[in-house]
Amino acid sequence: MKVAELQFQLHHTHHHQHQQQKQNKQNETAQMCRKIQLSVADQLSPPIRSDSADDCDMADEGEEFFVPPLNFAVVDNGIFRSGFPEPANFPFLQTLGLRSIIYLCPEPYPEANMEFLRSNGIKLYQFGIEGRKEPFVNIPEDTIREALKVVLDVKNHPVLIHCKRGKHRTGCLVGCLRKLQKWCLSSVFDEYQRFAAAKARVSDQRFIELFDISGLKHLPMSFSCSKRIR
Amino acid sequence: MKVAELQFQLHHTHHHQHQQQKQNKQNETAQMCRKIQLSVADQLSPPIRSDSADDCDMADEGEEFFVPPLNFAVVDNGIFRSGFPEPANFPFLQTLGLRSIIYLCPEPYPEANMEFLRSNGIKLYQFGIEGRKEPFVNIPEDTIREALKVVLDVKNHPVLIHCKRGKHRTGCLVGCLRKLQKWCLSSVFDEYQRFAAAKARVSDQRFIELFDISGLKHLPMSFSCSKRIR
Repeated sequence: MKVAELQFQLHHTHHHQHQQQKQNKQNETAQMCRKIQLSVADQLSPPIRSDSADDCDMADEGEEFFVPPLNFAVVDNGIFRSGFPEPANFPFLQTLGLRSIIYLCPEPYPEANMEFLRSNGIKLYQFGIEGRKEPFVNIPEDTIREALKVVLDVKNHPVLIHCKRGKHRTGCLVGCLRKLQKWCLSSVFDEYQRFAAAKARVSDQRFIELFDISGLKHLPMSFSCSKRIR
Repeated sequence: MKVAELQFQLHHTHHHQHQQQKQNKQNETAQMCRKIQLSVADQLSPPIRSDSADDCDMADEGEEFFVPPLNFAVVDNGIFRSGFPEPANFPFLQTLGLRSIIYLCPEPYPEANMEFLRSNGIKLYQFGIEGRKEPFVNIPEDTIREALKVVLDVKNHPVLIHCKRGKHRTGCLVGCLRKLQKWCLSSVFDEYQRFAAAKARVSDQRFIELFDISGLKHLPMSFSCSKRIR
């Protein structure tokens, strides 16, 4: 019931926002980032059915429960991370009021997910980073840098960063963000390992360590915990 | 340098806030919670020295880095979790602009930590839950319920929840919060296990599963991701 109310509010808020909005050319990120500006449907879309109860072992009392995506977590104010969102996760994602999603894999976004973005007016920034296995991992530094600029831009918040499992590619991007927030490297690695667990890669941590943040330090970080003064 | 600026601002903001404020009697939580309302020192306290660089292997370029406490993470808007904060973590904690700390152990708070609270005008809510080992674990449900009320009260935000390692007692409290947020149990356990790792306890997860949230559902949860509509 809560989910249904939520969808109703979302539709009313966003319905007339970007009708047939044209995709803006963004020269800087064009080469490495496929930014897809979705137009919100003219008609009220049918509410996305909540599949959460089906996937959940707690559906007693006839209530519906939210199913966060695999490896979901709050990174900072208005910044979230996770593995690949399934349709069962959509009702939960709606509660976040997302304005954009940063998707770090080269594979095309599934139609069900595209439809979710369209009906909720969520922008998709796709940075196609190959998910290679060690020792052939080669996270492209320039791509991570461009993705970081999208993360840092509060106009994109609330934003969800995800790849396939929310471990390696997402872990690298969040790790570089922590460096910008001036976190000690041991704390950055501790967080990386918490999500990667048994799949933690030395090469990813080496990438984070060597990642040069000097070109990004001038960017505003108003979202950050580190700037939130009472 | 950023740390010094921050401290300066914090002092100016909080200096005249609660001079010699008397401790309020809170009947409801009095039995299980030792709430300590700290008065802010009349004199500007000497800025807490940043020890972060000493503890950090990343202190190049003469910069100082932040050292988040063990197992630190963002739980939700204005709610954080961690293990026991050491003096090396104080500069980082200052960046969060904390209004209160929920401490879940029976041991007295160390003097260095008390001094940190005093000089930053942070309230301490202590709920003394014994850190017993399996199979003798017995998390007191009433205490967790009272702690949850403190977590849910936005007047206490930003709030840091911590115990010793940020795994069991903190994990139980956050787990019960997730139930209130209507997270699916499997997702609640997934998060619990991410922080407890090799020390995950079936008994803690059983406690979370059996925890009765019906008496708390009426409380407002304005902080929650689940209510943040764009």
